[in-house]
Amino acid sequence: MSAEEPLLYERVARLVEAQIASGALRGNERIPSVRSMSRTAKVSISTVVQAYLHLENIGLIEARPQSGFYVRPPMRATVPPPRPKVSRSRRPISIAAETLDTCREALARPDILQLNGAFTSPTLYPNQRLNNLIREVLRDHPAHAGECLLPPGHEELRRQVAKRMTFAGAPADPAHVVITSGTMDAITMSLQVLCKAGDTVLVESPTYFGVLQVVEYLGLKVVEVPNHTSTGIDVDAVRNIARTTRLAAAVLMPNFNNPTGSVTPDDAKREIVAILSAAEVPIIEDDIYGDLHYGNTRPTSLRAYDDAGLVITCGSVSKTIALGYRIGWAVTPQFHADIARAKFFSSVACPTLQQLVLARYYASGGYDRYLRRVRTTLAANSQSAVDAIVRYFPPGTRVARPSGGIVLWIELPAGVDGVELFRTALASRIGIAPGLVFSAKADYRNYIRISCGMLWTPTIERAIEKLGRLVAGIAKAA
Amino acid sequence: MSAEEPLLYERVARLVEAQIASGALRGNERIPSVRSMSRTAKVSISTVVQAYLHLENIGLIEARPQSGFYVRPPMRATVPPPRPKVSRSRRPISIAAETLDTCREALARPDILQLNGAFTSPTLYPNQRLNNLIREVLRDHPAHAGECLLPPGHEELRRQVAKRMTFAGAPADPAHVVITSGTMDAITMSLQVLCKAGDTVLVESPTYFGVLQVVEYLGLKVVEVPNHTSTGIDVDAVRNIARTTRLAAAVLMPNFNNPTGSVTPDDAKREIVAILSAAEVPIIEDDIYGDLHYGNTRPTSLRAYDDAGLVITCGSVSKTIALGYRIGWAVTPQFHADIARAKFFSSVACPTLQQLVLARYYASGGYDRYLRRVRTTLAANSQSAVDAIVRYFPPGTRVARPSGGIVLWIELPAGVDGVELFRTALASRIGIAPGLVFSAKADYRNYIRISCGMLWTPTIERAIEKLGRLVAGIAKAA
Repeated sequence: MSAEEPLLYERVARLVEAQIASGALRGNERIPSVRSMSRTAKVSISTVVQAYLHLENIGLIEARPQSGFYVRPPMRATVPPPRPKVSRSRRPISIAAETLDTCREALARPDILQLNGAFTSPTLYPNQRLNNLIREVLRDHPAHAGECLLPPGHEELRRQVAKRMTFAGAPADPAHVVITSGTMDAITMSLQVLCKAGDTVLVESPTYFGVLQVVEYLGLKVVEVPNHTSTGIDVDAVRNIARTTRLAAAVLMPNFNNPTGSVTPDDAKREIVAILSAAEVPIIEDDIYGDLHYGNTRPTSLRAYDDAGLVITCGSVSKTIALGYRIGWAVTPQFHADIARAKFFSSVACPTLQQLVLARYYASGGYDRYLRRVRTTLAANSQSAVDAIVRYFPPGTRVARPSGGIVLWIELPAGVDGVELFRTALASRIGIAPGLVFSAKADYRNYIRISCGMLWTPTIERAIEKLGRLVAGIAKAA
Repeated sequence: MSAEEPLLYERVARLVEAQIASGALRGNERIPSVRSMSRTAKVSISTVVQAYLHLENIGLIEARPQSGFYVRPPMRATVPPPRPKVSRSRRPISIAAETLDTCREALARPDILQLNGAFTSPTLYPNQRLNNLIREVLRDHPAHAGECLLPPGHEELRRQVAKRMTFAGAPADPAHVVITSGTMDAITMSLQVLCKAGDTVLVESPTYFGVLQVVEYLGLKVVEVPNHTSTGIDVDAVRNIARTTRLAAAVLMPNFNNPTGSVTPDDAKREIVAILSAAEVPIIEDDIYGDLHYGNTRPTSLRAYDDAGLVITCGSVSKTIALGYRIGWAVTPQFHADIARAKFFSSVACPTLQQLVLARYYASGGYDRYLRRVRTTLAANSQSAVDAIVRYFPPGTRVARPSGGIVLWIELPAGVDGVELFRTALASRIGIAPGLVFSAKADYRNYIRISCGMLWTPTIERAIEKLGRLVAGIAKAA
């Protein structure tokens, strides 16, 4: 069985997905019975059951007792997705450092329920397989501690990374890949290579706070374009800013933006690349969540539309198989030599052992099977978390419904301070991320981000229930 | 046997060392016979032999056939140490990027004799022990790939690093240690924390080219103070510059400067810290080679003289036990929280596995026994390399005689271009580092740096012979 070929049950699931997408099957409509689908698709009953359970896991259909499977009604009517804040200030204000420090410290606390980190549950990781590969490498490279795989990094790992870019619609040359210490290392070095202090960088609002911090460290200015929960990066805003502002680079997260979870549609991606290329603005694409799509198709990389070679795609293994390995990459036809140089001078190289192990892991072909399992779990978790928020949060709450990734972006009722909720929740040993850290202007005061990477348990459900009560309490007092 | 207690043979060696240092034993003088020393020191014959072989290895004495051991004559008369270039320009000029790229690429070439890198031979590493510890950690932490040891990093490793600072005369609080991806990562982040673009940083001339590159990436200016091959950092120059120039930080390498190999004496260290502290200039101390002293005593850290808490000591395992692990640290009472924050935002964390393994390795106590063996080998290598240079290089050559570290700094006869030698040597598959990359002003045109970290073999001797012929050829043509 080829790892790339869809499995039988996936083909069946896609049939149903396509019908829902086209509107042939609408909300609350009954989908074909297992038996009739088995005849239509010429597959076994158990394959259809597997397909339907998968569709249920990713939230597209639901089982109704004694009746069969139905298309899940869109929930927008009861809890709509959060609205973006539109802001175009060119004067970044420093994000409340204290809040960020408290966030960071909370991540290291073993006594709290970690709904604050954007991590996949480590229990999902292919730990046994990876550990066996480590033992293999110890046998084959007993002196690995003395070997330094200098930038651009281990050749076979670069080959594997380049190969996998095909799934994002953007096959790459292994010579264009530089191995880094995770995605943020790739983004930081890209910014160092492309910008000098005082330059202006385009970012999304909201966006991952680490990007904003690095931009601040490097003495750069930011200009923000909205990221809409349902439609992704605002193309018109990009066009306007490219027309009026001299940009040194853009840092964009078109696939499962952190925190909104949105995917920017392919047409918009093509247009954004065209607009910024015409203005000769290099794009640093943060593709860290790209592999974690709930549906069957991986969203495309901006590099798929990049004729000018100005896109640097950054990714890592941190959200998928090995957060603790600290290995990522930058893929760029134009800037790979500069980034390799920056890597050498700022931290010499990435650890040898992890590079050797990951190259073997990818080459061994188990990754796609593994990913399928993780994606199904994340999709189910995400749905369960949305359901719990709908159930337990007070009216006026809005929640995103991402089609991939590990986080949920929640807009609280007007007047509810996300930082207050963050502190109150921490006192109840529940970690969340307050919205204001996700923009340079400290917008999103009444927003929070929670993780859906952990395995769904009654404990998590109770924590969300508790959060709902805290929100209601703050709303009442406001 | 305590790891810290000197061994019997070391005590004997120290007796002789002290007599040479005090002048009681002079060059070419015969030292006590093995038999008489055995009686005097009340130790066995074999202990004395071990002591004398050690002293021979580190270049203090030499065996003369049929005659006994003699104090090695100072060789300054025939091949003196290189002279420093005194330069105080505040306008850094970019180091020839092409030369640096060629240097970096040469390091990755398996077909050349690597006299260019400053690495200890990996065959000296405690590989088996480290690999067994990895297997242990895999058993105890099977899910380590999912664990992230967030900055400041693994607590037990920080405790071990802090404890070892005692050997450098500067005991530290584990809370003041931040684990980093090697020494350069620690230096880079320290600079980011302390400086903003346009600020001026004090560096040595010559100094490690990586520091100059990072300074350039961060948009900083440099002002240089001489590092003298025999007396280390020029205190007067530091005083003058501190008086006239507003400095944001200093990056200093008082212990086995790369490339000169010099150690700055304790009194000078004390004075430098006092001068810079009075001017409120934080010092980033690059102590990467501190553990590799050829004699018995580790040189002190600048932190030993630091009442104001302005010194950040940076080090790593890269030169001692595990280049491929990419683990280092910054030790600082004042800036640890800022560096931990910078680490989190620029690359999140260091790999979990290596942190767990190194904590166990240091705790297990084998490191000091191991270091003793490596230091003896490096001392012997260094002496052999100096001897070969004396033998094979043309008159007009000067060579440093370091008392620790992995490199030799060589001044070629006037008019011999180190870059030309670098290129010619590369064509003969011998890697060296040209002098001009070691200063921001591209001084040191007729200097080179070679490594003495590899095990001494006839191949290396022949390579140095070849280099000598190439130097002579270039000198003739000049």
